[in-house]
Amino acid sequence: MDYQDYQSAHEAYAYPLLIKQLLNRAKVASKDQKIHYADRLTYTYADFFKRINRLANVLKSLDLQAGDVVAVMDWDSHRYLESYFAVPMSQYILQTVNIRLSPDKVLYTLNHAKPKVLLLNAEFAPMIQDYHLDVPSVEKVIWLDDGAFDGAPNAIPDYMHSLCAGEYEALLAAASEDFDFPDFDENTIATTFYTSGTTGDPKGVFFSHRQLVLHTLGITTAFALNAEKQGLGYGDVYMPVTPLFHVHGWGVPYMSTMIGIEQIYPGRYVPEKLVDMIEQKGVTFTHGVPTILQMLLGEMAKRGRKFDGLKMIIGGSRLTEGLARTAVANGVEAFTAYGMSETCPVITMSTFNQKEVLSEDEDIIRRTKTGVPVALVDIQLWQGGERIDAQDEQSTGEIVVRAPWLTQSYFKNHDAGDELWQGGYLHTQDIAHINREGNLQVTDRLKDVIKSGGEWVSSLEIETILSLHPSVADIAVIGVPDEKWGERPMALIVKKPDCQETKAEDILALAEQAFERGMIPKYGIPSQVRFLEQLPKTSVGKLDKKVMRDMFAKGLFAE
Amino acid sequence: MDYQDYQSAHEAYAYPLLIKQLLNRAKVASKDQKIHYADRLTYTYADFFKRINRLANVLKSLDLQAGDVVAVMDWDSHRYLESYFAVPMSQYILQTVNIRLSPDKVLYTLNHAKPKVLLLNAEFAPMIQDYHLDVPSVEKVIWLDDGAFDGAPNAIPDYMHSLCAGEYEALLAAASEDFDFPDFDENTIATTFYTSGTTGDPKGVFFSHRQLVLHTLGITTAFALNAEKQGLGYGDVYMPVTPLFHVHGWGVPYMSTMIGIEQIYPGRYVPEKLVDMIEQKGVTFTHGVPTILQMLLGEMAKRGRKFDGLKMIIGGSRLTEGLARTAVANGVEAFTAYGMSETCPVITMSTFNQKEVLSEDEDIIRRTKTGVPVALVDIQLWQGGERIDAQDEQSTGEIVVRAPWLTQSYFKNHDAGDELWQGGYLHTQDIAHINREGNLQVTDRLKDVIKSGGEWVSSLEIETILSLHPSVADIAVIGVPDEKWGERPMALIVKKPDCQETKAEDILALAEQAFERGMIPKYGIPSQVRFLEQLPKTSVGKLDKKVMRDMFAKGLFAE
Repeated sequence: MDYQDYQSAHEAYAYPLLIKQLLNRAKVASKDQKIHYADRLTYTYADFFKRINRLANVLKSLDLQAGDVVAVMDWDSHRYLESYFAVPMSQYILQTVNIRLSPDKVLYTLNHAKPKVLLLNAEFAPMIQDYHLDVPSVEKVIWLDDGAFDGAPNAIPDYMHSLCAGEYEALLAAASEDFDFPDFDENTIATTFYTSGTTGDPKGVFFSHRQLVLHTLGITTAFALNAEKQGLGYGDVYMPVTPLFHVHGWGVPYMSTMIGIEQIYPGRYVPEKLVDMIEQKGVTFTHGVPTILQMLLGEMAKRGRKFDGLKMIIGGSRLTEGLARTAVANGVEAFTAYGMSETCPVITMSTFNQKEVLSEDEDIIRRTKTGVPVALVDIQLWQGGERIDAQDEQSTGEIVVRAPWLTQSYFKNHDAGDELWQGGYLHTQDIAHINREGNLQVTDRLKDVIKSGGEWVSSLEIETILSLHPSVADIAVIGVPDEKWGERPMALIVKKPDCQETKAEDILALAEQAFERGMIPKYGIPSQVRFLEQLPKTSVGKLDKKVMRDMFAKGLFAE
Repeated sequence: MDYQDYQSAHEAYAYPLLIKQLLNRAKVASKDQKIHYADRLTYTYADFFKRINRLANVLKSLDLQAGDVVAVMDWDSHRYLESYFAVPMSQYILQTVNIRLSPDKVLYTLNHAKPKVLLLNAEFAPMIQDYHLDVPSVEKVIWLDDGAFDGAPNAIPDYMHSLCAGEYEALLAAASEDFDFPDFDENTIATTFYTSGTTGDPKGVFFSHRQLVLHTLGITTAFALNAEKQGLGYGDVYMPVTPLFHVHGWGVPYMSTMIGIEQIYPGRYVPEKLVDMIEQKGVTFTHGVPTILQMLLGEMAKRGRKFDGLKMIIGGSRLTEGLARTAVANGVEAFTAYGMSETCPVITMSTFNQKEVLSEDEDIIRRTKTGVPVALVDIQLWQGGERIDAQDEQSTGEIVVRAPWLTQSYFKNHDAGDELWQGGYLHTQDIAHINREGNLQVTDRLKDVIKSGGEWVSSLEIETILSLHPSVADIAVIGVPDEKWGERPMALIVKKPDCQETKAEDILALAEQAFERGMIPKYGIPSQVRFLEQLPKTSVGKLDKKVMRDMFAKGLFAE
């Protein structure tokens, strides 16, 4: 090929896949469409575009350089949505801080990512104060204050004054509404955040502009192709109930903005208020973990009403058949998407074919299975390094994946990154089978973690803490199914021969203390303890948690 | 930013956007789904993937190098679909030859693109023979023969024997069904074809793998987000009635394969057979020019039946309100998409919001407007180099565009490429206004061309031919609206003072001769002639065709 012949024209636009390009459609098609921050604020997309410009001007005034990190600690707000765009569009990296982690871990993630600017909700200031805001990288804090909307602004605390650039709304109001976002390499990193998935310290993942744009297109195709009851359209009204610090709110804020539909950001999740907003603002689609679906159903049950066909993508933990049935019976079109922090996150989604007639049971199973690969996603099942080709709904293997939107490593942790990508595919550590229609079913997992209410619990960490008790000879913490939380940690303990009198509460007291000291989150405290004679081990002497989970499933750990 | 920190893991997959990746979803989700070639052949996607591998092995055996051009001259067949994938996936460039051009022009495009291999339908062999197959670049011909399916194979002509590698189906049958498609740069050119849009010789456009993948994602979002009646879903059954040599069949074969839905390729377009296939195979969506929609409606009217909600995207020429009304009344969900060869093609599409209630008139207008920008597409209206910001459905300007899927120049014609991309936006030469909802309406065009039955007619070329008549003093050919063909060429002629007796037929005889000699297509012969005293000119003495079209619209050229 003579490449000269296919040369670009001098002024041809090479079109980098940048987050700013996600706004192109809405800029002409959705000028008058609305964005709401709970009951506090409503503005149009036309205003939104100006506010993004204003925020970019504020950030620019703080002497940031391309590649600097800007961290956000906030509930789901219009500010968060504005940061999703203004921060990476200015060529800074957005760190979405998981404020549900223990304060120790929050500080760890901040000190690891080293943000120069922190957007800090006044509600989290005490957390920062108690732990002495020991984040030397932060040069400026932008103060986020819901009190201002409610007529009772919080005073900016004295200890914050030297750092504080000002209050968010005041800073935006004072800034110019014009900003010309530059073009740059689409592989520039746009976002980073931390997963406490496996063991020890949280690990940072990172995503480029290109990856986020492609993820947005990919999930839009998957969601929109579904039949109308489960599908997405221009008339939908969106509200997240997955926190925006969780894997880009599963990418849905980017998708909703690209399409230009009405959006509601609900602030802190209070079931009663969430249901108020769904009913009052006519929310038609959302997404969240099973625990929050249960809360919404519980709240609606109190009101003696049903939802009106609310579409809800469920992820983070398995949607059980029981919950799916209850959801459908109460007007919630619940179905599954699958992914993880490392995968941006979505790689599979339930599919609903407008021509297909499913029995009630088939319909429920369709909703609860792990889903079919999204366009472009190359999913394989591997067993001992070999690909499993059979789509017989029986042969299992680890889900490994290639997609245009997977983290390419862990931040400053190349060994873990190399392990993640062993063999050229990203390893999910989830075990699954697949059926003839390409629908996966996760059946087990390789990683030693527990997911409670959508948040990861490191079993190793809990084991380490509980093992400090003098009467513990051996310990394992496993995740056991829980109707409300998806999973809860259960501690399996072998006591030392001379400590047979020790009670579960004595040992759990250590976990309570660890929580109080900010070392572990509250949901890390085991909700059950069982004492055993010995723990199942593998041939090489490692704890065999697969066997333990199987034993639990067979009722061998009944109280 | 310390880029070292964000380094990829050693084995991380950087995921180039290659056409082969479009198959990932269907490979697990649509193994048993069907692809049909008219009534001649039906196979599954599982077979399709193997056939792509077989074709790749056949091509490989022909000593092709990366970047070599493989041309296809065929009606819409399974072979064409297989070539859409196997050719670019092997890192060759697919040339889709427009066989509706005059034979002269077909030869021009072949000699300009210089294919090494030509896939030639037996039906077009006489064209090649009559014009002496004067394409020295072609080293091998693969013979495509529908006769073989119909039990009456065509003999490969003697003059072809030295070039002919064999018959397509026989070659595939003899080849291995395994092929490992390599990864390569996503900016590698995948396709090329020619547009005879403006003046003189056809111009080559070209598209990379990346561009085709992004176009596929973009149009999928636009189509799938529409309300169910006009939207796309997993249950749809697709058949093109836009030829596959026209701008990748508008990209829909790539889209349908990515999603993994049932597909039918109808062969040569015969209205009766097309309607048979729609009725018998349950086709639910298609796309084509208004002329073919009229043919389908005419054929169905003969049968005394209506279509059953067939979705049909109309492009190439304006969908008139009258035709849209007839279509809807007869069960065709017709609506508009807009683009051109240079734009891959789709950049706007009609939108239908599942919540919106439109009156019958509003609904018809929605279908016939030019459409709303597809996601990522940056469309602006320019007037005298300035952007028109008003979305008032009145202020007009030229449509200029940036999107991730626009030709970056013309092939071996950099001057024309530079003109196309003047100012960093691709110039469509169409004039439009836009409304508050982002819906464009093309009102006029800058280019001096006529579009008849979806095919471009170069007015300059027709003018040149007719001006050869000794009695012609001045001439202009304009496109005038035509119920059946969208537009037809009309010749406006000023006769020399001493030739006032010359008749229209005498002058048109030159066009007839040009057609017979293969210089212009049949639809290039003007269907009407008007004699005038003088022709409207611009201030700089150029023919003012805008004024001529206005005069026609006002009835001033009535017979």
